[in-house]
Amino acid sequence: MNSEIVTVGTELLLGRIDNTNARFIADQLAQLGIESHFQTVVGDNEDRIVAVLNQAATRSDLIIICGGLGPTVDDMTLASVSKYLGLNLQVDETQFSQIKAHFNRQHRSMTPENVKQAQFLAGAKILPNDVGLALGDFVKTVKGPDIAVLPGPPSEMETMFINHLVPLLEETYPVQQHLISRVLRFYGISESMLMHQLNDVVISNTNPSIASYAKNHEILIRLTAQGKDDDQINQLLDITQTQILAKVDGYFYGTGSKNSLAKEVVMQLKQKGLTVTAAESLTGGLFQSTICSIAGASKVFDGGFVTYANQAKKDLLHINAQIIDDNGVVSKQTAIAMASQARKIMNTDIGISFTGVAGPDQLEGHPAGTVWIGLSFGDQQVKTQLEQYLQTDSRQSIREKSVLTGLQMILQMVK
Amino acid sequence: MNSEIVTVGTELLLGRIDNTNARFIADQLAQLGIESHFQTVVGDNEDRIVAVLNQAATRSDLIIICGGLGPTVDDMTLASVSKYLGLNLQVDETQFSQIKAHFNRQHRSMTPENVKQAQFLAGAKILPNDVGLALGDFVKTVKGPDIAVLPGPPSEMETMFINHLVPLLEETYPVQQHLISRVLRFYGISESMLMHQLNDVVISNTNPSIASYAKNHEILIRLTAQGKDDDQINQLLDITQTQILAKVDGYFYGTGSKNSLAKEVVMQLKQKGLTVTAAESLTGGLFQSTICSIAGASKVFDGGFVTYANQAKKDLLHINAQIIDDNGVVSKQTAIAMASQARKIMNTDIGISFTGVAGPDQLEGHPAGTVWIGLSFGDQQVKTQLEQYLQTDSRQSIREKSVLTGLQMILQMVK
Repeated sequence: MNSEIVTVGTELLLGRIDNTNARFIADQLAQLGIESHFQTVVGDNEDRIVAVLNQAATRSDLIIICGGLGPTVDDMTLASVSKYLGLNLQVDETQFSQIKAHFNRQHRSMTPENVKQAQFLAGAKILPNDVGLALGDFVKTVKGPDIAVLPGPPSEMETMFINHLVPLLEETYPVQQHLISRVLRFYGISESMLMHQLNDVVISNTNPSIASYAKNHEILIRLTAQGKDDDQINQLLDITQTQILAKVDGYFYGTGSKNSLAKEVVMQLKQKGLTVTAAESLTGGLFQSTICSIAGASKVFDGGFVTYANQAKKDLLHINAQIIDDNGVVSKQTAIAMASQARKIMNTDIGISFTGVAGPDQLEGHPAGTVWIGLSFGDQQVKTQLEQYLQTDSRQSIREKSVLTGLQMILQMVK
Repeated sequence: MNSEIVTVGTELLLGRIDNTNARFIADQLAQLGIESHFQTVVGDNEDRIVAVLNQAATRSDLIIICGGLGPTVDDMTLASVSKYLGLNLQVDETQFSQIKAHFNRQHRSMTPENVKQAQFLAGAKILPNDVGLALGDFVKTVKGPDIAVLPGPPSEMETMFINHLVPLLEETYPVQQHLISRVLRFYGISESMLMHQLNDVVISNTNPSIASYAKNHEILIRLTAQGKDDDQINQLLDITQTQILAKVDGYFYGTGSKNSLAKEVVMQLKQKGLTVTAAESLTGGLFQSTICSIAGASKVFDGGFVTYANQAKKDLLHINAQIIDDNGVVSKQTAIAMASQARKIMNTDIGISFTGVAGPDQLEGHPAGTVWIGLSFGDQQVKTQLEQYLQTDSRQSIREKSVLTGLQMILQMVK
């Protein structure tokens, strides 16, 4: 059982948008245990779409084609599939009535092309569109690969895929081997260094397979195991996870493909009944905004300070001007003063501070990428960390890494 | 002259990463005026890579293949291209010495596979790698398409493409027709509504062509014109831009593919010598962080407040508790008080505030997506805006849209 993905759209060929549809479908197929060896992008051109389908038919059992189902003359995917399969197009009258009603509601007039969105391939199972107008199709063929036709707008395609295509695929291609993936998340180590340290583990494991990828300054390791049932697979995943953490535990912070350092921090603080505030200079509110991006942040965070200019550090945090004058604003001492003062004023358990150089210019002789992070925990404990990011890092990248490092420092302190 | 892009990587077939390389290369080719009709993704598998190259040879004059040049056994792109072209692989001794030196510096031992990164195709022009180890290749063939081989890590591929491949492509395929694109940026209108209002303009223009796409809650319109010289093309672009703005001026804020609402705001404030501060509740610092993401923000922004909890609004902003008690925290009156108090305390020209419901839960009976934005300008002018985003919007999406709307309000006030 081997599938391939065809995405249609001139805007993809011109590099105007990322092909997130191909990625979504590929990920879904992998989860369903359906192998996929090829993806093709082709423009809105009937001859070329038909040529791509003929090519796909020589090597695949299932083609998923997506995009080009709209009402304009540029949209020719369904006509192309109809030509390739030798199947007529029919109009679904119920859908056509709904399209008419949709235009009436919006007080807009329909064009003759709008009927295209109610068309389907004769003999196909119709895939309803829960969030848009164009119908999808699933055609089982006797010779050649089966074919699914999906709309291009991601929200429509994803909803149709999950709600209507997945059940058909599960029914049509029952999978014997069951797959489960688990994502392990690391921060503060490069991908090459991490994989270097894990070399023996990677070589000695085939089930689960081990793959690494970098995402938003983090390194994720995805373990994918197959087996007969969930228990057996999870046991395999546990064993490999233990082997991995024995080598690189210091950089590991959690599991899950939707997890994040901020989520872990909010969860840990909530569990331990701790609160946090921040005084941010170069990060300009990015730490606090990241905490607030997590649902339930209000349990651990009341508010804090953005003190970009030195005057704001003095006015809002009441930092002794002498500390900044003596040590500079990019200094351990200023970081400590910012963190402790923020903690005191907001009366929280933890205060964190960020002061440094986001660039592009240097500051007080420090190059872009120099960042002091201060952490004040209760009345006694103070921790600081000096980060020296690359000068080639962008301003935004330096700010993002500072926030992630700050989150990691909190996690290490409270865990 | 017709090109096609082949990206190699099992992680793409499994949907683990977006194919940003294909998009980058496609965009570059479009800018060079080189047409591209197909993109293919194939896994790290020699037979399938060779099959894809043979297929591409039937329809294209130039193949750009990218990814799979690393030192592991999984990396087989160069060997596959060597097999397809019938060209031997040779070792670039200078590069090999540099790789050895790189490993020495890191106190790491090399594996026998590391020599692969110093290999090139006999007779190829070598493409140096300015930020990584693996070399690239450009091969001009007598029969069949020319072929360029590039590494997979985006930073290496992009640097090699721009620095070393573009000059070769310009020299090898001189383009007669010159292309210039211009991006117009809109906020606060849906793509379908924008394009509906521009229907006549789109139909009546073929040079420039007009294409829209949505990105981070904004709508971008890309005009692409061709002509003999820059002056002629820019004149064509100006005429069409004028036609477009005559229809939808209210939502337009600037041009440029790297521009943003925040950049426009910082630039406008700087030009007019104005300063800004903020008091943020649901946005939790995202507005201030967005301002600080722009180089030169320190000219217009000193600092501000994250007042997530009601107590912080009272303590940090000294808002009369009665205002919140009487009107609720999600109210016009609270938004005004937050904005004016922040402005007064920080002694700035503009104060902006955000108070609302990011969700998922409702607050004071208001559904997620209800947001009041307050703007205080000088001693007299106050403006508020009530936004009601969709309850199906994510927490992060509601916060991002609030910030963009706030930026737009500032722009409209100071322009």
